[in-house]
Amino acid sequence: MAGVDLAKTAAKNGTPLYVYDLSRVAANLRRAKRALKRVTSRSRVFYAMKSNRHPEVLKSLRLAGVDGIDVCSPAELQRAVELGFRENQISYTGTAMSEGDADVLMRFPGVALNCDSLSSIRKIGLRDPGRNIGIRIDPSIGVGYRQNRRLQYAGNEITKFGIPIERVGEAIRLAASLQLEVGGLHVHAGCGFLTPQLPQVRRVMARVAELAATLPALRYLNLGGGWGIPLVKEDKPLDLERWALLAHGYFGTGNTEVWVEPGDYLVKDSGVLLLTVTEIERRQGREFVGLDGGFNLHPEPVFYDLPLEPVPLSLRNGRKRRVTLAGNINEAHDLWYQSVLLPPLKEGDVMCFLNAGGYGASMASNHCMRGSFKELALK
Amino acid sequence: MAGVDLAKTAAKNGTPLYVYDLSRVAANLRRAKRALKRVTSRSRVFYAMKSNRHPEVLKSLRLAGVDGIDVCSPAELQRAVELGFRENQISYTGTAMSEGDADVLMRFPGVALNCDSLSSIRKIGLRDPGRNIGIRIDPSIGVGYRQNRRLQYAGNEITKFGIPIERVGEAIRLAASLQLEVGGLHVHAGCGFLTPQLPQVRRVMARVAELAATLPALRYLNLGGGWGIPLVKEDKPLDLERWALLAHGYFGTGNTEVWVEPGDYLVKDSGVLLLTVTEIERRQGREFVGLDGGFNLHPEPVFYDLPLEPVPLSLRNGRKRRVTLAGNINEAHDLWYQSVLLPPLKEGDVMCFLNAGGYGASMASNHCMRGSFKELALK
Repeated sequence: MAGVDLAKTAAKNGTPLYVYDLSRVAANLRRAKRALKRVTSRSRVFYAMKSNRHPEVLKSLRLAGVDGIDVCSPAELQRAVELGFRENQISYTGTAMSEGDADVLMRFPGVALNCDSLSSIRKIGLRDPGRNIGIRIDPSIGVGYRQNRRLQYAGNEITKFGIPIERVGEAIRLAASLQLEVGGLHVHAGCGFLTPQLPQVRRVMARVAELAATLPALRYLNLGGGWGIPLVKEDKPLDLERWALLAHGYFGTGNTEVWVEPGDYLVKDSGVLLLTVTEIERRQGREFVGLDGGFNLHPEPVFYDLPLEPVPLSLRNGRKRRVTLAGNINEAHDLWYQSVLLPPLKEGDVMCFLNAGGYGASMASNHCMRGSFKELALK
Repeated sequence: MAGVDLAKTAAKNGTPLYVYDLSRVAANLRRAKRALKRVTSRSRVFYAMKSNRHPEVLKSLRLAGVDGIDVCSPAELQRAVELGFRENQISYTGTAMSEGDADVLMRFPGVALNCDSLSSIRKIGLRDPGRNIGIRIDPSIGVGYRQNRRLQYAGNEITKFGIPIERVGEAIRLAASLQLEVGGLHVHAGCGFLTPQLPQVRRVMARVAELAATLPALRYLNLGGGWGIPLVKEDKPLDLERWALLAHGYFGTGNTEVWVEPGDYLVKDSGVLLLTVTEIERRQGREFVGLDGGFNLHPEPVFYDLPLEPVPLSLRNGRKRRVTLAGNINEAHDLWYQSVLLPPLKEGDVMCFLNAGGYGASMASNHCMRGSFKELALK
């Protein structure tokens, strides 16, 4: 990975160990920016910080020319500022805005702020009249990786995000009454979509375009995140050019800027999680391979039904066999894989989980006090 | 709570705020010890630290006369020692034991160590011949709160925990070959069971008794944790006397000590989580009540399908209505309750979630950098 022998890196640093390839992050960003340019020359790529907030990852994105960063809480906002992002390079898209959140936001008037409720418009208007804001709307259409329900942010069920389209007029009148100008429109329909989900994405775009046409003062249109990456062999990479062509059709003309805020797309495949095989144990005809880290270090397999493809770093000869990959947390569901075909393993071998660069370390907990891990960023 | 006005406490300390009532912890412990004494006079109650490791909670349990503490990782072991537990007051029941875990355990020869695999017996035997160990077995029968699948640790599926009964002979021979003596037998079948699940618990006991009869050198029998508490109005408290009567029938005679290691039973109902209502927003005919904390502060409602009963601290007149309680994390599933009937609420009101004292703070993460909270222990 990035010219580095991961087995040696694991031996040197110990496990659990996250390793990020910063050149991959930069390559992902270049691809994203190129696609965006096909939508319109007035486009900007914001990175969704919640996916991975490792300082080196953020710095490398800034150096590679990311247009900005999207944050979702006051603490993320402050971290972005500390790392050198200017206010006009930051967008804030939070939820359940508290009075305390609004107090912090008032101190950063240059941040592009997307309000996702009438209540938050009111909070901002009372503090910061004259501000130009964006509104997050609920498109009532959801998309997500392989129709994964946990990753759909609109559609099947009424979600907590955004202003329903039928209340947008009311929201704009409320904003105007508080001397706020609505210059931005934000929409996010779900996470991890690939090419097969593009027809659904097109429906979202059509709905947004229809609404945008009624809002002549729009400065920017933020299409959110959601671009997926292949997680299993059967997945094909998202055809980003085709996405761009669709978006160009709807939003390519006019003066409105087009923004996106990918997270996983920029960082997920840049990261791996290395764990050591601690034991191999036969239980009732099944082989359990124990590892020195569990779901508290990366919640996606257990809680999101999202796979992290395992690759053993020592390739041994012998027939592949079906094993269960288990973590070291005292909970029965702490399994990386219920059943996966792998070459022979030995205690002490290092297992490399692919696509662990997003929503892993940033969501880790110290459950069972098994929360220690290192992170290494390769230039 | 413990003579304290929680609304004032929230106003003074801010939210998110966990509050623990240490007198309730002590009362729970007294009840547990009393029941255990009915099983046999040679009984010991160990507290499962992973449920809540707040130093004041641990200290209060020690002062209230807990017999010991059960830990599941080297870091928990070290924390227990730092807080004043002596080695002979500590049991270690971990999983996926690494070489590093074994190295730490070797330095604490007085700790009652339950090995849950042949591999871990081997690791200990190579380091610490002569040690008296326990073995954790898989009873192949699961129990859990209302048949919740995430809380069953044996039974329906082959789990990662314990040595299958048919391999116990092999495990004991392996231990003997490494000069280890098997003096303990450990079993844990699941979490949160109440009186209706006792027939299933009885089946576990019967199986364990049968096995124990073949092991005359047993010093202790650890029946694990799993005692549940009522979580919703329909639940009745676990009839612990009936549990004790069952256990007495199977394990009341002979010289073997009977140990248990409850976690939630001692702390869950001693704790509440206080959050502030940040917004009330109507979306497509549904009322969303936003709060200043999300599933990263307490994972049970979202990831375990376990309810935390919400009680507003300001009781307002007016008709109850059905609302959705949402957190402030940027994920669609971050909902405390999809639909719950509550009295009228206003922004700024404090919501008190009951039974939040276990597996809440100890599993919290800093997802979205929304991970800040305080903990307050009331004497």
